[in-house]
Amino acid sequence: MSRVYKHISQLLTLEGARKKKGRHPLEKDLGIWEDACIVVDKAQKVLWLGATSALPETYHRFPSQSCEGETWFPAPVECHTHLVFAGSREKEYGMRCAGQSYLQIAEKGGGILSTVKATRKALPEDLLRLAVNRIESFASNGVSAVEIKSGYGLTLESEIRMLEVIREAQRRTTVQLVPTFLPAHAVPPEFKGKDDDYVEEICHVWIPEIAERQLATFFDAFVEKGYFNIKQTEKMVLAAKDAGLRVKLHVDQFNAFGGAELAVRMEAVSADHLDATSDAAVQALAKSDTVAVLAPAASLFTGTSYPPARKLIDAGARVALTTDFNPGTSPTTNLGLVATIAASQMKMTLPEALVALTYGAAAAVGLEDEFGSITIGKRLRCARIQAPHYEAWAYGFGSVSPEPLGNH
Amino acid sequence: MSRVYKHISQLLTLEGARKKKGRHPLEKDLGIWEDACIVVDKAQKVLWLGATSALPETYHRFPSQSCEGETWFPAPVECHTHLVFAGSREKEYGMRCAGQSYLQIAEKGGGILSTVKATRKALPEDLLRLAVNRIESFASNGVSAVEIKSGYGLTLESEIRMLEVIREAQRRTTVQLVPTFLPAHAVPPEFKGKDDDYVEEICHVWIPEIAERQLATFFDAFVEKGYFNIKQTEKMVLAAKDAGLRVKLHVDQFNAFGGAELAVRMEAVSADHLDATSDAAVQALAKSDTVAVLAPAASLFTGTSYPPARKLIDAGARVALTTDFNPGTSPTTNLGLVATIAASQMKMTLPEALVALTYGAAAAVGLEDEFGSITIGKRLRCARIQAPHYEAWAYGFGSVSPEPLGNH
Repeated sequence: MSRVYKHISQLLTLEGARKKKGRHPLEKDLGIWEDACIVVDKAQKVLWLGATSALPETYHRFPSQSCEGETWFPAPVECHTHLVFAGSREKEYGMRCAGQSYLQIAEKGGGILSTVKATRKALPEDLLRLAVNRIESFASNGVSAVEIKSGYGLTLESEIRMLEVIREAQRRTTVQLVPTFLPAHAVPPEFKGKDDDYVEEICHVWIPEIAERQLATFFDAFVEKGYFNIKQTEKMVLAAKDAGLRVKLHVDQFNAFGGAELAVRMEAVSADHLDATSDAAVQALAKSDTVAVLAPAASLFTGTSYPPARKLIDAGARVALTTDFNPGTSPTTNLGLVATIAASQMKMTLPEALVALTYGAAAAVGLEDEFGSITIGKRLRCARIQAPHYEAWAYGFGSVSPEPLGNH
Repeated sequence: MSRVYKHISQLLTLEGARKKKGRHPLEKDLGIWEDACIVVDKAQKVLWLGATSALPETYHRFPSQSCEGETWFPAPVECHTHLVFAGSREKEYGMRCAGQSYLQIAEKGGGILSTVKATRKALPEDLLRLAVNRIESFASNGVSAVEIKSGYGLTLESEIRMLEVIREAQRRTTVQLVPTFLPAHAVPPEFKGKDDDYVEEICHVWIPEIAERQLATFFDAFVEKGYFNIKQTEKMVLAAKDAGLRVKLHVDQFNAFGGAELAVRMEAVSADHLDATSDAAVQALAKSDTVAVLAPAASLFTGTSYPPARKLIDAGARVALTTDFNPGTSPTTNLGLVATIAASQMKMTLPEALVALTYGAAAAVGLEDEFGSITIGKRLRCARIQAPHYEAWAYGFGSVSPEPLGNH
C-alpha cells in the first residue's frame, strides 16, 4: 500500500551530490528539505518528495504518519569489508599495544596468516553463521549494501568456499552484497618465495574459474612492498578484466610506489586505503572517476597516520568512507564512528562525510544508480535517526544508530 | 541466597593493582584466574574466589552456574562527567569540522555558554530525566559509580539546582553517584571582566552554602588561560577545603602554567585533562598521590593532541581514564571506546587501560576501598563480557559492552 511520511524534520536526498558524482559536496548538495514529506508506493518506489506543505492533493487520501524530530538520509553503504573469517585476534591487539612488532606477533602465530589458518579450517556453516551475524550488525545500523572480499583462504578451493559463503549469505539477508575476489591479499605459505608463480596461477587458473562460476563482481589485490608489486598487479588486473571482473585495488597503505596511479590507469572503480599516498597520486585520482576509499577507523585502531582526505577532496577526487571491517586492523561495523573519526581527525566536513558514506560508497561498488541517494521514481533506500539535524549522526561518536527504512 | 559462579574463563581481581595503588600495572597485577570460581552471599559479599578446581567442600551445596566463555573484571568507574545539562550542540560540531573557530561559534550562540543558557532555562524535572537517562547509559555498560559535576549554572541558584538534580538522581539509580561542585567552570556573563569578584563570591558565599547543604563531595575548577589563574584557584581550593570539600582540578588542558603542580601542592585527589602538561608536572604528579585523569576521547573528538599517558605511567604516576562526557567536546558514554583510544593512540597497554578504567578511576573519586577491585570480604561490584579474554573489551572498539553484575 502507498504511504505518506509527513513532517520529517530533515530529509536529505543527496540530489546535488548525485549530479556532481560526489565531488566537492557542499551543504546545498545534500538536498536538504525541512519539514519534509515523502510518498512511496507499495513496492517502496518514491512517488513524490518535497515540503509537507506542498504535498499534492492526489496523495492526501493515502495513509500517513508524522515523523517529527527525525532526520532521513540515503541508507549508508559499506564498500570495503573482509567479514568472512574465523578465529579471533584480540590477544594480538594486546601484544601490539604492548609494543610488540608485527614480526614478533607473526612469530607467535598472529597476523593475517593466523586468520587464513583459522578460516581454512572452519566449517562452511560456521563461516556462514559468523558472516551473516556481521552483515546483520551492519544492517541494524541502517546499511543497505555491503561489499565483502575473499582473501583469507588463499587456496583456490578455500577462496571458492569464501565466495560461496557470500552467495549463500545473500539468500539470508535483504542487504545487497557485493562479492570481491581477493586472492592477492598475501602470498600464501605454499608459495613462499615463489610469488611470481602464485601470480601466474591466479591469472591462468583462479580468475577464469571464479569468473566461470560467477562468484565475484570485483577483483582486488594488495599492492604493497612484501605483497604484490606493480608489474604483478597489472598482470592480474588485465586477466581479471579479460574475464569480465571489475577492479578495486588496495594501494598506498604503507608505501606509495605507484599503486594509486596504476588503479587510475587500469580504470579501477576504487583505490582503497591511500594512507601513505603521494601528491602525484592525489592529482591522478582527482582527474579520474576512480573513487578514493578511506578507512580512518583502521588508522585510529593501528595508531598509524590518517589518509589525506582534505587533499583528495580539495583536489577534486571522489571520496568514500569505510570501516574496512576485518579482525586485524578494524574490528568495527560502526559507520557512525567512522563519520566522527573522519570529521574530527581528517577534517572532513559533515556534509562531505555524509556523502562519502552514502553516495560515495555506493559509487565505490558501482551501485550509485540505485543506492546512495533518494530520487523520485527509484526505490526508497533510506535510514533515519531520531534527531532533528543530520549532524547528530557524526556528533553521536558511534552511539547514534541509523534505523533502516524501506531497504528491505 | 549464596551463589557459586564456576568456570569463569578469566576472572580479574586487580589485587596487585590495589596493593600498588594502581602504579605501573603489569599483566600479573591484574590478578588473573583462569577457569575461575567466585562465591557470593545473599548481600553480594564475596565469600571466596579462586580456581574452580579448588572450590572448598563447604560451598559445594550452594546453587551454582557455569560461566564458561565469560571474562569478569571489576565494574568500571566513570570519574569525570558533566552529564546534567539541557540543549544540544551537534550543529556546533558541524561548524567546528567546517573549520570555524571557537570564537566564531561562540558569536553564533555556540560554546559552553550556550549550554549554560539552556541549562539555566530548563525545568528541574527535564534536567533530572536527561541526567538519569545518561546515568543509565553508563550503567548499561557495566559502570558502578559515576562522578557528576555542576558548572552549567554559574549562578548560586542554578548551581544548587544542578546539585539537587544529582541528589534526586541518586534516589533513582543503584549506580553510586559522586557530586562535584564546579562553579569555576567559566566566568558567567554576569561577572564578565570581574573574575576576581566572582572568585570572592565563590569563596565567601557559594562554597559555604553548598557545604552547609551537603550537596557535593568535591570542589573543582578550570585552571586555564582566560578562565581561572593559579592565584584565584588556590584561594578557592583553600576555601573549599576549609568547608570540608575534597578537591579535583581541571589542569593543563590547553596551556601548562602550573595547574598540575598546584593540584599536587593542594593534595587534590585528581588532576584532570593534562593534554598540554609539562615534564615538570609529570614528575610532580609521579611523586604524589594525586591521580592523573585522562580523557583521550575528548582529544579525538576535538582533533587536539592526546595527553602524555606513557610519560605519566613510566614516571610512576597514578592514571585513570574517563569519557569526560559533555555536550561540547565528548558526547560519549562508551568507556570501551575510551579503552581502545587509550591503547591505540596513547600507547597504553591493555592491562594499564583496564586498571585506569576500574581501580584507577575509583581512586580518582576516593572510592578505591569499595570499587575497582574484587576482594574476599567485600561486596562484589563486577562486570562481565561474553569473551574468554579481557583484551576483547578494548579490542571491541566500543562494541563490546560489559554487563553489570552484582553492582545493584
